[in-house]
Amino acid sequence: MIASIITIGDELLIGQVIDTNSAWIAQELNKIGIRVNRRVAVGDRWDEIWRALDEEAAHASIILITGGLGPTADDITKPLLCKYFNGKMVVNEEALKNVTHLFENVFKRPLTPRNIKQAEVPDTATVLINPRGTAPGMWFEQNNRIFVSMPGVPHEMKGLMENQVLKKLSEKFELPYISHKTLITFGIGESMLADLIEDFETHLPTHVKLAYLPNYGLVRLRLTSSGIQKEIIEKELKALFEQLQLLVKEYLITNQDEPMESIVGNLLLKQQKNVATAESCTGGYIAHLLTSKPGSSAYYEGSIVSYSYQSKEDLLRVRRDTLMQEGAVSEAVVKEMANGLLNNIKTDYAIAVSGIMGPDGGMPDKPVGTVWVAVGNRQKLITQSFHFRFDRTKNIQLTAMNALNLLRTFMLADNQAAK
Amino acid sequence: MIASIITIGDELLIGQVIDTNSAWIAQELNKIGIRVNRRVAVGDRWDEIWRALDEEAAHASIILITGGLGPTADDITKPLLCKYFNGKMVVNEEALKNVTHLFENVFKRPLTPRNIKQAEVPDTATVLINPRGTAPGMWFEQNNRIFVSMPGVPHEMKGLMENQVLKKLSEKFELPYISHKTLITFGIGESMLADLIEDFETHLPTHVKLAYLPNYGLVRLRLTSSGIQKEIIEKELKALFEQLQLLVKEYLITNQDEPMESIVGNLLLKQQKNVATAESCTGGYIAHLLTSKPGSSAYYEGSIVSYSYQSKEDLLRVRRDTLMQEGAVSEAVVKEMANGLLNNIKTDYAIAVSGIMGPDGGMPDKPVGTVWVAVGNRQKLITQSFHFRFDRTKNIQLTAMNALNLLRTFMLADNQAAK
Repeated sequence: MIASIITIGDELLIGQVIDTNSAWIAQELNKIGIRVNRRVAVGDRWDEIWRALDEEAAHASIILITGGLGPTADDITKPLLCKYFNGKMVVNEEALKNVTHLFENVFKRPLTPRNIKQAEVPDTATVLINPRGTAPGMWFEQNNRIFVSMPGVPHEMKGLMENQVLKKLSEKFELPYISHKTLITFGIGESMLADLIEDFETHLPTHVKLAYLPNYGLVRLRLTSSGIQKEIIEKELKALFEQLQLLVKEYLITNQDEPMESIVGNLLLKQQKNVATAESCTGGYIAHLLTSKPGSSAYYEGSIVSYSYQSKEDLLRVRRDTLMQEGAVSEAVVKEMANGLLNNIKTDYAIAVSGIMGPDGGMPDKPVGTVWVAVGNRQKLITQSFHFRFDRTKNIQLTAMNALNLLRTFMLADNQAAK
Repeated sequence: MIASIITIGDELLIGQVIDTNSAWIAQELNKIGIRVNRRVAVGDRWDEIWRALDEEAAHASIILITGGLGPTADDITKPLLCKYFNGKMVVNEEALKNVTHLFENVFKRPLTPRNIKQAEVPDTATVLINPRGTAPGMWFEQNNRIFVSMPGVPHEMKGLMENQVLKKLSEKFELPYISHKTLITFGIGESMLADLIEDFETHLPTHVKLAYLPNYGLVRLRLTSSGIQKEIIEKELKALFEQLQLLVKEYLITNQDEPMESIVGNLLLKQQKNVATAESCTGGYIAHLLTSKPGSSAYYEGSIVSYSYQSKEDLLRVRRDTLMQEGAVSEAVVKEMANGLLNNIKTDYAIAVSGIMGPDGGMPDKPVGTVWVAVGNRQKLITQSFHFRFDRTKNIQLTAMNALNLLRTFMLADNQAAK
């Protein structure tokens, strides 16, 4: 079953907005056995949108459309779809109820004629009510093809997909059974990993695919199998997945598809320990990662983001001498930061980081990308230095990932030693 | 002059990778007067790539292609382009010199036959040497159309675009002049904004377009004009942009296209003041936003992320009584957090936030989405409560945006009062 994604909006074509919707939609479709073979982005232009609908419908059975459903004049997707599917515009009562509810109870603003227009839909569409926004989703069927139009606002699109579209697609088509199993490695590059498991990969059955997904020092390995009989598929995949885990066990950090902050969070929960962070160069990003997981208050105490020299002294009692002699990016300073944190806050574990993220601030002996990390507890601290060679955003992310991974290895060793 | 972007790679179609290249390419093309009218992403499949080349060439004069140039078996773009443009593969001496140099001096690894193959190109291509990687760029001309193939690695693609492709395109075509002007509003919805400027929008000349770009409480309004005579275009656009600014002035926060953290950062720089943050529910996200801007150390001191009750007491001297009587999400607590911060750290301004981001932790009188914010300085604090109704991620982002905006308004009033 083949799908195509059409994203609509001038903002996509002048580069003002990065399209994150398409990647998310593709992932979700994959999970239920639908392959995306094209993604097309077009502007808010009648002829371009029309052409995209024609072209994509010629090659795919499912066409998912996002964007262009706002209440303003540049949003022309709805009238276009009305014409494309030979409908006429009618007020949908349920959609109107939703818009009215949103304005009365959520936005607390008077409903204008422009807002009421948001409840109009082509009479040839099945309406998908969007409780997260004023623009309803629309489902059309024509020549054995499904067309679904959704708002471009990610939160609204995701709500519609999760609660309605994916279910309706699964019901509509006889989709094969698809199963994925994912593990995550850390500290080994994609090509070395490929060499390590070359034999395994070569001998995989043809209905099982292996994907390498490198991201910020991690490589996710995903096995995907599909077929008709669920039990056979699952049994075979389980055995292959166990083989794969053994092959990469030296680098394996989890056999779930979960982000680093969850791996560390779950480990803390399991050990009934908590952690705090002292961040310089990451500027709160490690804290943000840890707290982006619901329930993180069970193991996360807080962070001291000491971005300036002054705040390192004021908040973490880093000594001025150390800062002056060793520089803010040094083993001595991250150790003092970690100790300052452990003395100031009731935490079992501490993470401290300091580095130069760029583009400025590099020095001959400490170029941009130089990072020091300390992790540990009241008994012991370990440190590690890194040298990243990317832009500011990626340097910050890599620093956070490596700091969390260093804590993970420390905790595992700490727990082992305690036994 | 119309361009189309084709991105090639299975990773784009299973949602592993978010395509950031296209947005960047579109921005750069726009600046030199080339309009992108489509972006297409296809997998590493012969027929799909071929079809994309045919279709895009039918409607655009410039086709920029990224991806699929790696050394592994799934990368088929180069042989395909060789066939598409009726060439035969030859080793390009300059490309070979580049590959050899990279392996000897940068990667410090032996050159393999697989790497040498990277220096082969179709003899119908003009080679664009890529000093940042092993895959050269390729420039083809056919039927008055330009096709440029570049690696998908962002850093490599950008190097080729900046140093070669944009210059060659400017020389090749007589390009129209394109100009954009963007302003940002806060605190008004897209549809109310549309009502406010309906008359202005209706009377815009046909060569000027207005776009609405809503995002986390902000709405960006962008005017775009194009034509032959730069001076006339600029003069007219400037006048229209001034009109627009007047119409929305109550909600206007900047007349530049810049994120909230830059607006606040620039205001701090201008006033030569600094800020620190005390974050509970945002868990370091405000710190992360502020420090994601290079040079933020000039005005950002740091943050105390007091995620737990304990850390609010330990690090910010919030009184246990206040926490018990009022709850952590209360006006009294954010005021004490702000004061604790101002007493602990040498900062002019403070931001303090506490809230319930969900999905759990809501209470009948304080549902998920309840947020208190305090901002101010040693002389004065102001507070505001918010009630967001989204998921955890969006609630965190909206809290950060609104807290930064509250500081912005406080700073402007503070500066006004000082005069």
